[in-house]
Amino acid sequence: MNDNRKNSDEYYMKMALDLALKGQGNVNPNPLVGAVIVNNGSIVGQGYHKFYGGPHAEVYALKEAGEMAKGGELYVSLEPCSHYGKTPPCAEAVLKAGIKKVVIAMKDPNSLVAGRGIELLEKNGVEVIVGVLEEEAKKVNEIFIKYITQKTPFVILKTAMTLDGKIATITGESQWITGEESRKYVHTIRNRVMGIMAGIGTIKKDDPLLTTRFIEDGKSPTAIIVDSKLSIPMKSKIFTTLDERKIIIACTEEFDVKKKEELEEKGVRIIITPKNDNRVDLKYMMKELGKKGIDSILLEGGGELNFSALDSKIVDKILCFIAPKILGGAAAKTPVEGSGIEILKNAVLINKMSYKNVGEDLLVEGYFDN
Amino acid sequence: MNDNRKNSDEYYMKMALDLALKGQGNVNPNPLVGAVIVNNGSIVGQGYHKFYGGPHAEVYALKEAGEMAKGGELYVSLEPCSHYGKTPPCAEAVLKAGIKKVVIAMKDPNSLVAGRGIELLEKNGVEVIVGVLEEEAKKVNEIFIKYITQKTPFVILKTAMTLDGKIATITGESQWITGEESRKYVHTIRNRVMGIMAGIGTIKKDDPLLTTRFIEDGKSPTAIIVDSKLSIPMKSKIFTTLDERKIIIACTEEFDVKKKEELEEKGVRIIITPKNDNRVDLKYMMKELGKKGIDSILLEGGGELNFSALDSKIVDKILCFIAPKILGGAAAKTPVEGSGIEILKNAVLINKMSYKNVGEDLLVEGYFDN
Repeated sequence: MNDNRKNSDEYYMKMALDLALKGQGNVNPNPLVGAVIVNNGSIVGQGYHKFYGGPHAEVYALKEAGEMAKGGELYVSLEPCSHYGKTPPCAEAVLKAGIKKVVIAMKDPNSLVAGRGIELLEKNGVEVIVGVLEEEAKKVNEIFIKYITQKTPFVILKTAMTLDGKIATITGESQWITGEESRKYVHTIRNRVMGIMAGIGTIKKDDPLLTTRFIEDGKSPTAIIVDSKLSIPMKSKIFTTLDERKIIIACTEEFDVKKKEELEEKGVRIIITPKNDNRVDLKYMMKELGKKGIDSILLEGGGELNFSALDSKIVDKILCFIAPKILGGAAAKTPVEGSGIEILKNAVLINKMSYKNVGEDLLVEGYFDN
Repeated sequence: MNDNRKNSDEYYMKMALDLALKGQGNVNPNPLVGAVIVNNGSIVGQGYHKFYGGPHAEVYALKEAGEMAKGGELYVSLEPCSHYGKTPPCAEAVLKAGIKKVVIAMKDPNSLVAGRGIELLEKNGVEVIVGVLEEEAKKVNEIFIKYITQKTPFVILKTAMTLDGKIATITGESQWITGEESRKYVHTIRNRVMGIMAGIGTIKKDDPLLTTRFIEDGKSPTAIIVDSKLSIPMKSKIFTTLDERKIIIACTEEFDVKKKEELEEKGVRIIITPKNDNRVDLKYMMKELGKKGIDSILLEGGGELNFSALDSKIVDKILCFIAPKILGGAAAKTPVEGSGIEILKNAVLINKMSYKNVGEDLLVEGYFDN
């Protein structure tokens, strides 16, 4: 492949990836997909997967291209499907439209069907190129890839701290450590994930709503509360949000039967997990949440839950907002507490650490190997 | 000034600033200065202030330019001096050489002489432009500016922590939180400052040398130990470094007279400060260190000393290395501890926060208003 060829393939694929991202928050637990059709150097069709169960990206792009699809090139961020699901297979539609070349960022991560769309296209004489901007495409679909391959949610741990690692002052004041732009940013993430998770400690201390705010047409993710003994106060503000979102509480077998009934009457769903060190077994809980179709969770826990989550290896990604402030205090809380790791070589390692400014704050992102 | 003019002024000034930085660690407590002479679009002379008491940047550049200085333009990162100090005044040498235009990044910050060099040049018909890359020049000479205007050292607080704000595991293991490149980077800073400061807690716990290592021809800065009761063990390894560097210990009036004699016999210098909340008065100590000609200090303290230093408003800059790791642990130490700040709005604010990669770690820099 010469440089010009490579550059233009990447150019159109970048466009397809940008289109894919427009579906964020609306397609879960399906993948984000964008498609661009080019004919004779002109863009003749564009599309993206807009909502769960709706037409695939290729369908929109082919429709827009119409007759111009014939002899054209399709750029698509994920391998076109070859199976009948909620919609007919895209690979067949691509063939029917007379597309002569298909450029794909990444294969379908679902091992049951991976490669079948490509095979169908190639068997029918279409030129197929796979792997253009593959890393970027994998990042765009990090939630889908985790969920489809492991059947458990992609968990994002979010923390907000000062540059000396404090999430509150010594007296517990924590609103707000970070600036307005960071807080808004968190709400864009809330709007994109299917679940938001907190511990009973946070519910009792802050009495939060855990809803999506500051976003036009924002949807609040399912609230997932880790509460081993079902000790949540019935007056907690979060119950006022039951008309706009689901609430799931995870407890151990030690739950209070009457409280469970009361909660279920309100419409709260309860997950009972085995005990793990006297606490909710987070790994078990993730499997149950996966079965309920939850592909992604934003974990906004306190230090105890954050440590348990990392220790249980259920966390995939960290978003750490760092405010340009120092609070000091040996007694001030930090983002990850619990019993902690004893030996430095056993530290939980963060991969692909990157960072950017969000308003006056610094946002550090990274991934965990689990 | 048109854009081309501005661009070329900035181009040569950037060169002068890069030259200035070559003097780092060798000119303290004098400023870092670089000079470039351009004639007819060609660079005919370059120079920088190489060592304390040595010739100024302009002198080297004029010498290199020789006859070509005549009618030329001088770019210099700091206003040429107009007074007889350890060397004759540069402004006179510039006039004598026949330079027709002088571009200066910043005025001399010493209010006693500021503007005099410029005045002398202008009075003699030289065109003078001031303020090209002024912000950059102020950063290059941040140590000199603080010291010359306040007579106390520019203090840089250095910390190294995990992304969850821990400087050690719950068992106290701290070697090493950050990677090799970060540690080497710290030694380049040690090589540039005149003092390195730690608390008695760190001396007792880690028994460090606080020397400059991994740097060719590196010089170890004066060690400054905050030890209110002179309780430092006489066997501390740091005393083995007395042949290559000075050691100063600051204590309060509560010191042990015999211990003081013992230490002084070894060659250690003692600063006695008033008591501030039963501790060494750090502000007083900084004045004493300033009187001894120490223009810059790298503070590598534990959480207690770091908090006292911030609380006493003696810290000018922070260098916070963040390793891509999580340690957790409510009991694990954090970079700034002490009694802490109670109310969020009283947090110590960090200005001009910036960041970059150093090896696998992230280095966050910022400044404090004092």
